[in-house]
Amino acid sequence: MSSFSKVIEGASFSPRTQTAITYQPQQLICLDTSGYIARVINQTDADYAAVRQAAQANATLTTLRPDQYVLPGFIDLHIHAPQWPNAGLALDRPLNEWLDTYTFPLEAKYQDLDFAKLVYNDLVQELLANGTTTALYFGTIHNAANLELAKACIKHGQRGFIGKVAMDNPEQTPDYYQDASAQVAVDQTEQFIQQVGELNQTTDLKQTPVITPRFVPSCTPASLQGLGDLARKYDLPVQSHCSESDWENGYALEHYQMRDADVLDHYGLLTNKAVMAHGTQLNDHDYELFAKQGVAIAHCPISNVYFGNAVLPVKRVLAHHVKTGLGTDISGGYSPSLYQNIRQAVMSSRLLQDGVDNQLPTNQRGVSDSAISVKTAFYLATLGGAKSLHLQTGKIAAGYLADLQVVSLKNAFQADDADNIFEKLMYQTSQAEIEQVYVRGERVK
Amino acid sequence: MSSFSKVIEGASFSPRTQTAITYQPQQLICLDTSGYIARVINQTDADYAAVRQAAQANATLTTLRPDQYVLPGFIDLHIHAPQWPNAGLALDRPLNEWLDTYTFPLEAKYQDLDFAKLVYNDLVQELLANGTTTALYFGTIHNAANLELAKACIKHGQRGFIGKVAMDNPEQTPDYYQDASAQVAVDQTEQFIQQVGELNQTTDLKQTPVITPRFVPSCTPASLQGLGDLARKYDLPVQSHCSESDWENGYALEHYQMRDADVLDHYGLLTNKAVMAHGTQLNDHDYELFAKQGVAIAHCPISNVYFGNAVLPVKRVLAHHVKTGLGTDISGGYSPSLYQNIRQAVMSSRLLQDGVDNQLPTNQRGVSDSAISVKTAFYLATLGGAKSLHLQTGKIAAGYLADLQVVSLKNAFQADDADNIFEKLMYQTSQAEIEQVYVRGERVK
Ligand SMILES: [Zn+2]
Ligand SMILES: [Zn+2]
Repeated sequence: MSSFSKVIEGASFSPRTQTAITYQPQQLICLDTSGYIARVINQTDADYAAVRQAAQANATLTTLRPDQYVLPGFIDLHIHAPQWPNAGLALDRPLNEWLDTYTFPLEAKYQDLDFAKLVYNDLVQELLANGTTTALYFGTIHNAANLELAKACIKHGQRGFIGKVAMDNPEQTPDYYQDASAQVAVDQTEQFIQQVGELNQTTDLKQTPVITPRFVPSCTPASLQGLGDLARKYDLPVQSHCSESDWENGYALEHYQMRDADVLDHYGLLTNKAVMAHGTQLNDHDYELFAKQGVAIAHCPISNVYFGNAVLPVKRVLAHHVKTGLGTDISGGYSPSLYQNIRQAVMSSRLLQDGVDNQLPTNQRGVSDSAISVKTAFYLATLGGAKSLHLQTGKIAAGYLADLQVVSLKNAFQADDADNIFEKLMYQTSQAEIEQVYVRGERVK
Repeated sequence: MSSFSKVIEGASFSPRTQTAITYQPQQLICLDTSGYIARVINQTDADYAAVRQAAQANATLTTLRPDQYVLPGFIDLHIHAPQWPNAGLALDRPLNEWLDTYTFPLEAKYQDLDFAKLVYNDLVQELLANGTTTALYFGTIHNAANLELAKACIKHGQRGFIGKVAMDNPEQTPDYYQDASAQVAVDQTEQFIQQVGELNQTTDLKQTPVITPRFVPSCTPASLQGLGDLARKYDLPVQSHCSESDWENGYALEHYQMRDADVLDHYGLLTNKAVMAHGTQLNDHDYELFAKQGVAIAHCPISNVYFGNAVLPVKRVLAHHVKTGLGTDISGGYSPSLYQNIRQAVMSSRLLQDGVDNQLPTNQRGVSDSAISVKTAFYLATLGGAKSLHLQTGKIAAGYLADLQVVSLKNAFQADDADNIFEKLMYQTSQAEIEQVYVRGERVK
């Protein structure tokens, strides 16, 4: 019998499909030394007792309490690390004003490395404490600060995907915070790719550089072209915003006479490793393009309430076979918790279905068949995000990365069947109930 | 100089109007022995130093840390205490099915007093831990259990308004959980009024019995009439649900050929001490009736997403001068936190304004001028609820009840002006940051 580096004994919930979960009341989740789940042994399996005994003898067994449950770690598919200090602020402004007055001045401050270290170490720990084991980050234009974010991820044990933000269009970016030219935007992006490569030599927890045009308005055609070339050259992930709001959706139509998605595609940025945030104003043509190219959408339901001008029709997006995950979009969204975003994803989808205006007749108020279940929202926060990033994680099964969270049930009444327990976990878990977090099998909370 | 029973020194936020707050960076909040705020002394006042020194000498001074803020305690204007075990469950069913399959079977269990004690003690402590110092509760049909709720409020120090639920319509209530007749419904309601009166002899923290027809569908005309008579006889608060969903709104039209509000008014239940939950399907006629009679609406934004079939247009309601507060509606809403409901009130109002369906043109998507600010939502959770219950609380000022919460700022970056701090408190406070809670000057957390 092989010995495992760690064996967790307890109940678990894991996504099975986009609409279904797997519940196991008791199992042994056996981790290997390379950070993967080597085996999952159910109570009915022949060698359960033997494996358990061996783990106990090795002191590698962790037996959970009856009120604790193992879930896959969550994947935050869209978050602006430098905006963490602004979380919760100024959400009543339109997107372009919010950028100019609140966001760009803050992001400019990351030229100060001490500030960057302070914020990024705080944020990474906050996300891990909320059960987020992988995050796809926008950084700032400053590579030194972006590297501090990568170091914070390594230090605290989070799998980071990190982009140096490219924004060189002088008409849509402030003098005090912009890339000096398209060449600079592209060169700095390539420099950051090299820097992360070097940093990764020092750690097993590899960080991934991401090609990151902020969005079409803040880039010139030349920088979009150069970044598209880098995406091909390095085969790295790409992230941007796409049809995020009426204003942003309209910008491409006005300036390129093309849809926002088509502009990004034209410059080679819609690869099968691309993740586009928001997409509330995408249409069926765009969904079909995304599906064909393998582009993912990062759904950010809290942020969309403030800046999206509509609800992303998640069910329609999934029906078009577009990869979809969940993002907090700090600080367009106020909460670093994907639990809160799971709840808002469900609630926004219900408001889309039922409609919002009581002065309209019931049958004209909403968009029928739009509501998603909390199981679908859970899928987005786990497997949906993992597929978007081509990661073998987000599920509790052999061969998957051991990115896990152990959560306790807060209100234990009526916890008599699996669906009830699952719904309570999704609706009532706060940071206090997230008791253990593992990334690649290493305990990080 | 008079001496105070307790003096709290620190910064505070308090509602000033429906759209504005008062911030004081440092003040002495001086409590008297009867549970009121006797004085509020600002740093610029002449006797600040003397009062502070006297309190220090008496050991009655509590000086807060710089990251702590005093807020008024919150008022939960609509909550079903017996449904606490179901919080977070089965939110994907329509209202009538949810009642029959999940809610009525659970409420029937409160015949068991041990179960009632267990749940009610847990719930009251949970609400206090979330900063809720007053709650307007629906109980069940069982007076013995309802009295346990009143006792739990006294034991843990919460100001409760508690209703024995009346529901005698055999066509809309299950055999196993209904009042046997209109007479029984009315008599039991009157009995509970007496019982709470007796219980109140034993305590300074008075509990208030509330006349509680569940809603029009579950009552007969005879019980509605009898309860209306009790409301007049005792001059006590009334609570019910009104135009909560398309189904409920339609029930009165079908069975009484009147609007739901008019039915309640017809039976004398729309007094100026009445609080009606939800009201998502009320129209301008109803608002005018409510304003004329002094009836309040308990806005429950999370619950409404699941059961309301539209968003309550809070701004429109307030423009009609209708008293309005905020409720959790456990377990139609999943969260016992009014902070979460403040956030959802803002978010739902924004979705009402912007609209939800991206296939409609921008200018046809939503209802303009519907968004409320987080300051308005804070008003609802404090002063709005207090006015609805005719309570002198919900504000930090001399002559107001000393119902207070002391909250710490979670993310202290960018906390450089009062509005920023206030928004962060509203958007990021969880139970962990609510460090002290006072009801009538007594510390209860
Ligand atoms: Zn973003
Ligand atoms: Zn209710």
